[in-house]
Amino acid sequence: MKTILILGAGLSSSSLIRYLLQHAGQQNWQVRIVDQNIESVQKKIASNPHGVALSFDALNPEERRPEIERADLVISMLPARFHVDVAKDCIELKTKLITPSYISKEMQELDQAAKEAGILIMNEIGVDPGIDHMSAAKIIDEIKHQGGKITCFKSYCGGLIAPEYDNNPWHYKFTWNPRNVVLAGFGGAAKYIEQGLYKFIPYHELFNRLDHIEIEGYGSFDGYANRDSLLYRSIYGLDEIPTIFRGTLRRPGFCQAWNILVNLGMTDDSYVLENSERLTPRQFLNTFLPYDTSKPVEYKFDKLFTKGNKQLYDQFDWVGLFENDEAIGIENASPAILLQHILQKKLVLDPEDKDMIVMYHLFRYELDGQELEMTSSMVNIGENQVYTSMSNTVGLPVAICSKLILQGKIPDLGVQIPIKEHVYQPILDELEELGIGFKESWPTLKH
Amino acid sequence: MKTILILGAGLSSSSLIRYLLQHAGQQNWQVRIVDQNIESVQKKIASNPHGVALSFDALNPEERRPEIERADLVISMLPARFHVDVAKDCIELKTKLITPSYISKEMQELDQAAKEAGILIMNEIGVDPGIDHMSAAKIIDEIKHQGGKITCFKSYCGGLIAPEYDNNPWHYKFTWNPRNVVLAGFGGAAKYIEQGLYKFIPYHELFNRLDHIEIEGYGSFDGYANRDSLLYRSIYGLDEIPTIFRGTLRRPGFCQAWNILVNLGMTDDSYVLENSERLTPRQFLNTFLPYDTSKPVEYKFDKLFTKGNKQLYDQFDWVGLFENDEAIGIENASPAILLQHILQKKLVLDPEDKDMIVMYHLFRYELDGQELEMTSSMVNIGENQVYTSMSNTVGLPVAICSKLILQGKIPDLGVQIPIKEHVYQPILDELEELGIGFKESWPTLKH
Repeated sequence: MKTILILGAGLSSSSLIRYLLQHAGQQNWQVRIVDQNIESVQKKIASNPHGVALSFDALNPEERRPEIERADLVISMLPARFHVDVAKDCIELKTKLITPSYISKEMQELDQAAKEAGILIMNEIGVDPGIDHMSAAKIIDEIKHQGGKITCFKSYCGGLIAPEYDNNPWHYKFTWNPRNVVLAGFGGAAKYIEQGLYKFIPYHELFNRLDHIEIEGYGSFDGYANRDSLLYRSIYGLDEIPTIFRGTLRRPGFCQAWNILVNLGMTDDSYVLENSERLTPRQFLNTFLPYDTSKPVEYKFDKLFTKGNKQLYDQFDWVGLFENDEAIGIENASPAILLQHILQKKLVLDPEDKDMIVMYHLFRYELDGQELEMTSSMVNIGENQVYTSMSNTVGLPVAICSKLILQGKIPDLGVQIPIKEHVYQPILDELEELGIGFKESWPTLKH
Repeated sequence: MKTILILGAGLSSSSLIRYLLQHAGQQNWQVRIVDQNIESVQKKIASNPHGVALSFDALNPEERRPEIERADLVISMLPARFHVDVAKDCIELKTKLITPSYISKEMQELDQAAKEAGILIMNEIGVDPGIDHMSAAKIIDEIKHQGGKITCFKSYCGGLIAPEYDNNPWHYKFTWNPRNVVLAGFGGAAKYIEQGLYKFIPYHELFNRLDHIEIEGYGSFDGYANRDSLLYRSIYGLDEIPTIFRGTLRRPGFCQAWNILVNLGMTDDSYVLENSERLTPRQFLNTFLPYDTSKPVEYKFDKLFTKGNKQLYDQFDWVGLFENDEAIGIENASPAILLQHILQKKLVLDPEDKDMIVMYHLFRYELDGQELEMTSSMVNIGENQVYTSMSNTVGLPVAICSKLILQGKIPDLGVQIPIKEHVYQPILDELEELGIGFKESWPTLKH
């Protein structure tokens, strides 16, 4: 019997736990699941005989180390900043580890130690990062195998509301951590490269420089640039590629309004507003508008920002930005925190709502003297608000990878991401069976 | 005989040293001046018998402590971050201290220890901070003495090129540390309060929200908001004031162009540009413009930013932003560093140029049931590029305060700023004799 230890049983672990328990009997696994909240774990295990609920502080090495030692594989679903400490224990106790998160500098530095300990530490194997790596690596390998030379790679991903439940003028609801959505891109400039030219977009321009994407059957999307696309050149072995861009997808209309929130200064998280607990949404808005008591807030806002675009103005009206009835009511809050609370009242999921993950890749490449283009897209809709698309697309690749590791099918050692064929191919195949499949459109070569 | 120790003899110490040496004979002072560069000190002392040039590392406690111990007064002209260490030595060795810089949190914490040691540590006694405090405190005391209630205080200061030498389309030359000018306001939002309403201006809007100021005989100025005006409420004992604003002055035209540099992202100092050493000004500009090789850089820039305003466009053309002949040539540079180097080539002082410091206060107050307004302005022009206006307005208040302290006329102890009448009045009086005077315009009460 093999033992799997899962650290952290939050919302994003639902689909992971379901898969592992469903396969535990046949695969002869025991799945030991740790969370501070034992009831949440017990509910997820229900009456499955292969699951064991544990409740201790996974951040405390004294408590977790005996469990890591007895396990064959650890899956860390803890917040990303804790993975490195868990990895150090895994190296010392020679237990394999999976995390869905980005490899930090500190994690990368453990590569040699992990190899010496004879263990694999697989990272970036959720959805973004994860499914993006695997689906792109497959195409890159295929183009290289055909003898093509890749000249452009653009890749987009977004967590959105499913079309059937898209019923507000922002065409958006918070399906994931609202704070991360509010702070997306805050601070530095976005960096990418296009036709060999470095391009930098300052934060206050980020939601104004959009790519337009069409996905058959799902309509239009806008893509804004992620923080640093340049990093991905070395990740994909495309160091000489002249164009690489990574972006986030939203429905048309969202970015135009969000750009105004950024330009007002409402997404700033770097300072605290005095008397923040007393501000109504309207007063909060007015702190960012020029002083002029002879003009109503609506007039000043429209003159400076929405400029007579009624549809755009109505988005702000609908979301309650001009309301003055009651204070938002949060002490020592930054602008970003107050904004988040205003938006959360309206951009919230109704009980029956389902989320949607959309991914889209575009490659251009040269082959046999021809300039070719291919696209690959994946749209996945959640089952409900427990087995969301986010939970499925993060948890299922982790779960399938766990199975492959315990079956001895991934002999690699050290700190890895899933861009080798023997890793991504079986995972992508099984994801497709589970309804998470890509639609690739390849060009026909002219002869 | 009294001994004065000056730590640091850089450009901004010229006028300070000249004043102290001129008065040393009559006042029976020895002026001991430390700088790493002994020749610079010797040149400043020339043949004056009351000056002693010292060369050691003023940052090394072992070297400076014997000199601090023998002195009656220390003047620290070191970079501001070193003042606290010097102050700790002064407390231990019971020697009085003057610095022209803002009181840091760490400096404020030394207040009780300085009082117990029986010494005065006078800070913020240059121009801004310094002359601004003194000239404002005098007016505030006067209005309060009349029985008035202050409802509005706006205060502006700027270091500019004197009108006779203002011969470029930016109406600006670097008369002071260019890096501080390029980074002015970078990062957080500016904060102030107007008619009881808190106002926040995000950085990318800072140079777009301008006050217009007229000073008789000197024409028009634009004022943009300083980082945090709210702090000044407690400094001036105006905790309940409904309007307080501190700003920086520029000539009309400057801020409109600077706003474009900010909105391009060129003043960002938070990241390094790859291959920065290879970029020409034109390529540097193009990294911030949308990708479109079918349009020249000039077209894209004008379409997005100068929008057909030829005068504004010509400012950028004149400053060399479209030039492509040679690389700026700095490795691992941030956008702000590259921008600084482009601007420094053109916004540079000619040998005969003189600088100018401008200060302007506006007060509104209620007295005898009337709403009144008064203004106070100071314009000072430098003598040359050694005894600049900046050097005079920073150094002379420090020097006069030194004299008062050594004459026993400032009995205060602890960490102080010059807002008490027995401090500001004699300093303002003597500054006026030295050509640094304020023109106050008081209203006439209607009876």
